[in-house]
Amino acid sequence: MRISLVGAGRVATHLAKALHQDHEIVDIYSRSIEYAEQLAQRVSARACDQFSQMQQHIDVLVIAVSDQAINTVIQGIAEYFDDVLIAHTSGSTHIHILEQYHTRCGVLYPLQTFSLERDIDWKTTPLLIEASQDADLSLLTNIANQLSQRVYHYDSAQRLSLHLSAVFACNFTNYCYDMAKQVVDARDVDFSLLYPLMIETAHKATQHAPQTVQTGPAVRKDQNIINMHEKMLKELHRDDLKKIYHDLSDAIMNRI
Amino acid sequence: MRISLVGAGRVATHLAKALHQDHEIVDIYSRSIEYAEQLAQRVSARACDQFSQMQQHIDVLVIAVSDQAINTVIQGIAEYFDDVLIAHTSGSTHIHILEQYHTRCGVLYPLQTFSLERDIDWKTTPLLIEASQDADLSLLTNIANQLSQRVYHYDSAQRLSLHLSAVFACNFTNYCYDMAKQVVDARDVDFSLLYPLMIETAHKATQHAPQTVQTGPAVRKDQNIINMHEKMLKELHRDDLKKIYHDLSDAIMNRI
Repeated sequence: MRISLVGAGRVATHLAKALHQDHEIVDIYSRSIEYAEQLAQRVSARACDQFSQMQQHIDVLVIAVSDQAINTVIQGIAEYFDDVLIAHTSGSTHIHILEQYHTRCGVLYPLQTFSLERDIDWKTTPLLIEASQDADLSLLTNIANQLSQRVYHYDSAQRLSLHLSAVFACNFTNYCYDMAKQVVDARDVDFSLLYPLMIETAHKATQHAPQTVQTGPAVRKDQNIINMHEKMLKELHRDDLKKIYHDLSDAIMNRI
Repeated sequence: MRISLVGAGRVATHLAKALHQDHEIVDIYSRSIEYAEQLAQRVSARACDQFSQMQQHIDVLVIAVSDQAINTVIQGIAEYFDDVLIAHTSGSTHIHILEQYHTRCGVLYPLQTFSLERDIDWKTTPLLIEASQDADLSLLTNIANQLSQRVYHYDSAQRLSLHLSAVFACNFTNYCYDMAKQVVDARDVDFSLLYPLMIETAHKATQHAPQTVQTGPAVRKDQNIINMHEKMLKELHRDDLKKIYHDLSDAIMNRI
């Protein structure tokens, strides 16, 4: 298939490289022509920074830009791709946003966290797909099956709750790691000592319901340790961390 | 060496089994004789529920009980083990608690989360040791080196900050998984879809400083998505999760 991408960021880069294995990548669009060129070169595509310059004889146009920019992109680009399937890659953007301006709409949402420095294991990455028309759902399913062994048809409402859930499971989790690092950094203790604990905690939560394996002073209602920890955070002049420690401990103690 | 343990819970069980590979486990004490017997049987030891019944000719006595119980145990047990090294396994209990009642004191703290259902990879588990006397530090170092390739000498203050850090990296992280599961459960979406994301997030944080790989709506300051997520949590009648979402997003946005 002939596929073009709007976007040259983390998701666009990983997705273009993966799609390039089985398909022809035609154009890479970015508002920054430098970024477009960098990615285009890696997938033997053409770079451009104007929608009007893009080749219109393609099968699928993938919009892989930040959530805020999707609305602007579909408004500007729809007129050039009248009979092309246009799919976005966002967990939190309803398919309606595309459908306001276009007929053949879809979503291909990879439920994973992307960094430029790290390769993605596409085969195990869940891909959540949705399309306005049945034929386009088949088309997206075929593309998705080539990328991953875990392809799911979810509507926008289900996808939105998965994305919300991912904020807890990924973004907030990473912030917990970040806070953990700040605590040991303040005492010149090596953060890497915590790596086995972090990895084991993640694996354990994939094998047991997290509630059933909750450990720590809060779930034991060990107020002495909690007070001591809050005192330590106060001594480090980290009232911000102390507040989060207090609120999360409270939530764990009062979980229904 | 001849080693006895006070405690028959998760840490005591994993530690007794590991120590049993290289040493003789003499007594397992628990206030519950049934628990003591269960563990004692697995490590060919004797079970007891009275300190006065324990054999006194041993090399090391390990106190592996909850933090709250350590004080009571050392008060009751010190008189029977006058010339024995007594070590606790707690991250958050100062060695002074033992030193109030005993001369030869130590700490052997495994920085890991223990469940009865899961085996521990002792070789990669950091062991933090401390002792009141140099000879006992050598003795504990020898025991620790047989268990793990990662043995560290840290004093009580450093160990306490590692334990506080571990609450963020393990306990709060697990609670984030728990909240994530509650969100998808409310929409009948399968929590296992998030497993690759959880594992990748943990691994990424062991290879890059977590602050540098923070993703999600908060770090992008994407107030539209944040508002939408908070509205979804309100619709689920989860004002408790909404508050945590709000506070953690705020903290990420305002991180120094």
